[in-house]
Amino acid sequence: MATTVWTRRHILSLADFTPAEYDTILQTTASFQEVLSRRTKKVPALQGQMVANLFFESSTRTRSSFELAAKRLSADTLNFAPGTSSLSKGETILDTAKTYLAMGADMMVIRHREAGVPQAIAFEMDRLGVRVGVLNAGDGLHEHPSQALLDLFTITSLIDFEYPRIGLLAGKKIAIVGDILHSRVARSNIWSLTATKAEVHLAGPPTLLPQLFAEWGTGAEKREGSSIAQIPNRNLFLHWDIEPALKDADFVMTLRLQKERMTAHLLPSLREYHQRYGITRDRLKLCQPDVKVLHPGPVNRGVEISSDLMDDPQFSLISQQVTSGVAVRMALLYLMGSSKI
Amino acid sequence: MATTVWTRRHILSLADFTPAEYDTILQTTASFQEVLSRRTKKVPALQGQMVANLFFESSTRTRSSFELAAKRLSADTLNFAPGTSSLSKGETILDTAKTYLAMGADMMVIRHREAGVPQAIAFEMDRLGVRVGVLNAGDGLHEHPSQALLDLFTITSLIDFEYPRIGLLAGKKIAIVGDILHSRVARSNIWSLTATKAEVHLAGPPTLLPQLFAEWGTGAEKREGSSIAQIPNRNLFLHWDIEPALKDADFVMTLRLQKERMTAHLLPSLREYHQRYGITRDRLKLCQPDVKVLHPGPVNRGVEISSDLMDDPQFSLISQQVTSGVAVRMALLYLMGSSKI
Amino acid sequence: MATTVWTRRHILSLADFTPAEYDTILQTTASFQEVLSRRTKKVPALQGQMVANLFFESSTRTRSSFELAAKRLSADTLNFAPGTSSLSKGETILDTAKTYLAMGADMMVIRHREAGVPQAIAFEMDRLGVRVGVLNAGDGLHEHPSQALLDLFTITSLIDFEYPRIGLLAGKKIAIVGDILHSRVARSNIWSLTATKAEVHLAGPPTLLPQLFAEWGTGAEKREGSSIAQIPNRNLFLHWDIEPALKDADFVMTLRLQKERMTAHLLPSLREYHQRYGITRDRLKLCQPDVKVLHPGPVNRGVEISSDLMDDPQFSLISQQVTSGVAVRMALLYLMGSSKI
Repeated sequence: MATTVWTRRHILSLADFTPAEYDTILQTTASFQEVLSRRTKKVPALQGQMVANLFFESSTRTRSSFELAAKRLSADTLNFAPGTSSLSKGETILDTAKTYLAMGADMMVIRHREAGVPQAIAFEMDRLGVRVGVLNAGDGLHEHPSQALLDLFTITSLIDFEYPRIGLLAGKKIAIVGDILHSRVARSNIWSLTATKAEVHLAGPPTLLPQLFAEWGTGAEKREGSSIAQIPNRNLFLHWDIEPALKDADFVMTLRLQKERMTAHLLPSLREYHQRYGITRDRLKLCQPDVKVLHPGPVNRGVEISSDLMDDPQFSLISQQVTSGVAVRMALLYLMGSSKI
Repeated sequence: MATTVWTRRHILSLADFTPAEYDTILQTTASFQEVLSRRTKKVPALQGQMVANLFFESSTRTRSSFELAAKRLSADTLNFAPGTSSLSKGETILDTAKTYLAMGADMMVIRHREAGVPQAIAFEMDRLGVRVGVLNAGDGLHEHPSQALLDLFTITSLIDFEYPRIGLLAGKKIAIVGDILHSRVARSNIWSLTATKAEVHLAGPPTLLPQLFAEWGTGAEKREGSSIAQIPNRNLFLHWDIEPALKDADFVMTLRLQKERMTAHLLPSLREYHQRYGITRDRLKLCQPDVKVLHPGPVNRGVEISSDLMDDPQFSLISQQVTSGVAVRMALLYLMGSSKI
Repeated sequence: MATTVWTRRHILSLADFTPAEYDTILQTTASFQEVLSRRTKKVPALQGQMVANLFFESSTRTRSSFELAAKRLSADTLNFAPGTSSLSKGETILDTAKTYLAMGADMMVIRHREAGVPQAIAFEMDRLGVRVGVLNAGDGLHEHPSQALLDLFTITSLIDFEYPRIGLLAGKKIAIVGDILHSRVARSNIWSLTATKAEVHLAGPPTLLPQLFAEWGTGAEKREGSSIAQIPNRNLFLHWDIEPALKDADFVMTLRLQKERMTAHLLPSLREYHQRYGITRDRLKLCQPDVKVLHPGPVNRGVEISSDLMDDPQFSLISQQVTSGVAVRMALLYLMGSSKI
């Protein structure tokens, strides 16, 4: 098995993850998924340790998933709620993090509306010489690694439940549809999926696609007169139209549409968005017959995806994604806790 | 003992509870009450299971009671807070419930300001074929089963601490006073109390009593020129005046007065309400000498009940109700978890 | 060792704490500090007991510290959040406390913006004859005992890590600088520090110093034409200027400046406050060479203390205070739970 000794104390970005690291996470997640199928869904791995959930940007779904993952590893948890916090008393974010460090946090799960906050906290922890792991649970428009990893686990374990690994995606086509530009989920997914041998196709309105493909860090040539561009060495393709992205796709990832994009005039109406980029049964006929659809949730029914399709277990992996989320987060906390660095 | 094997996965309404089911709950509660009298008030019954408290309508008291009940059964708990939730992002209630299902919830405790939400979620869980129990913790004006069951436990265990059972209420007279019309507590209590051999008398302002007795599901004849009506086959009586309801009563249940009823002109002043329907020492002289008073809390002191009476342990069962609440909720979660269906 | 059998059920004020009691707390804290240095930072001391955190005034930092302390003693915790509570439904504070009592709380940790609330609740618990401990986690401008005790532990354990005790402070000079008048932290610290043989010097703007020294409970003579006053029998000195307070000090405690004091015209600008009373490297040259600085947090960087000094481990004890906080609170909950009264 291609797993390795884990050497990352922090999980901040997937930009430099190695194939072996992805496989270690996938295999560790599979073993926790097995734990979660038992009646007593709990292991003593982090007994007596403390996980601080510092959600400067509020979230029920992701915070609950991390909280449950920590509890199922028998850790104690503390939740930081920005509304009633010292932040309103003028404390800096780094000081808040250092307060939870001083209380004895062994790991911190950080979400913030600004890109780079988890990195800054991790940097500070390292500077202080403390053995505290920092996990990025979503920072601005930057990254959301645990979401991309749960997506990766969901699709690889569908192919091989016992032994999920990135090699299973070789030759698969994966479409990511929607507001790529503003999506931290898309950014993390592009790192992980292009690290496999899959072809990754992005599709969305021009206003919601990265204007400069170079910003993905690899450079890209745009072919004149076409809505498609390929980014060299990364098997990554960009489209303004949804059809070429969906054509023969094995997996379709839809992104949540932030309604505030419309007030910023980046989008016409929700209805028009659905007509052009919404995932429907009809559109899925372009894909492989056994295509599966993913969405990071929460879903705007009838916008990113038609309501009946979302509930159809033949196509939708949405509920498996949520389930995978707890197991992936258990794996990440567990691996960080056992980091050899 | 008249207990039976438990066969309900959900607890949504008391409308069709059988006497044997009530007795099973009462006996199970009695055994948890004994656990709660120990120094270590905890049992491993639900170790490794997860109870999701989905309180779409906020509540500290009931949520705390359920949270503690779950923790004392060694379950892990997740609390859903509507303020910071995906609901504000447009997610439907069913999708929220399905997210917690996918996270691995074994049981869901649901409160919502609309009647029928817990039922809809339970229906969806059954449709999905999953073994998740749904407990109604208050839905609109409809029902609040755990409150009625803790009331039932409080009064039956007062009569026989070791062996509480509904048969103990045969021949007892129980008055329920206040805003019957808008009270989910009253509705659930009417189901449970009329299932005993007790006489149940409702009293309240005409604007706050059900206009059509038929809506209680049994039909009723209103006697002309009188403020009393009896509902056939259910030992249920309705009064506009409080005195006939209190006459020789063994137990008096007062209901919380929602102050917003006054702004809707359904009530004159709080003072006038207290004068006509408030429970005072004087009024209690109409009752049995050993009458006891119950209130679901939180109490408007000096409105539904005079302040000194509320604190008088000779009459008030209010604090016993809160204590019973934790034990009853442990019993309900335990029984649902062991359901044979 | 000078420890004694613990006989206080409640911890409300340090006004009448004996030297033996301080030493018992310091020694008990030292033993929990050792627990917190292990990988599994947890003991079963309060297994199956329940600690209710009733924070009528919201707080993340102190609530988190108490919550973690309780969890590390293996207690179950319930958090009361005023925003979504029965308080908004008109329930009195005493009724809220009695509800948590009836739910089975073994201890209550109370914070309230009004002085005297924890005392009133403790009085009510005693009147009811129940064995529930009440801990004051900050009441108005009155006291904040656990903060003063963690300060005491921080400085005594710095002198003797193994065997912290108040006798270690004999002959030490401790300065408390800032808004003494409005600080419950200062009030509690004055009780504990003057109980040692240390000299305690208070310094702050005249508008933020107690006008009548007599209000400290001991009477004091103010020397005409001077900004210094000594309170007899308590080794307590007051200054309008910071320099005499800092002169040769071993420890400097800065207090958080509430910005609302400025809008009340008790203060000029933050900048001017920093110039006159802010702790800087320059000012520390007046102190002993190994002087240490404390702050209860959260810090207004650049106001009460210069930003670089706050982060300098040679001088700052701020992070040790937070760490001590968890251990002290474990000790307090543990001692209250084992109270022989």
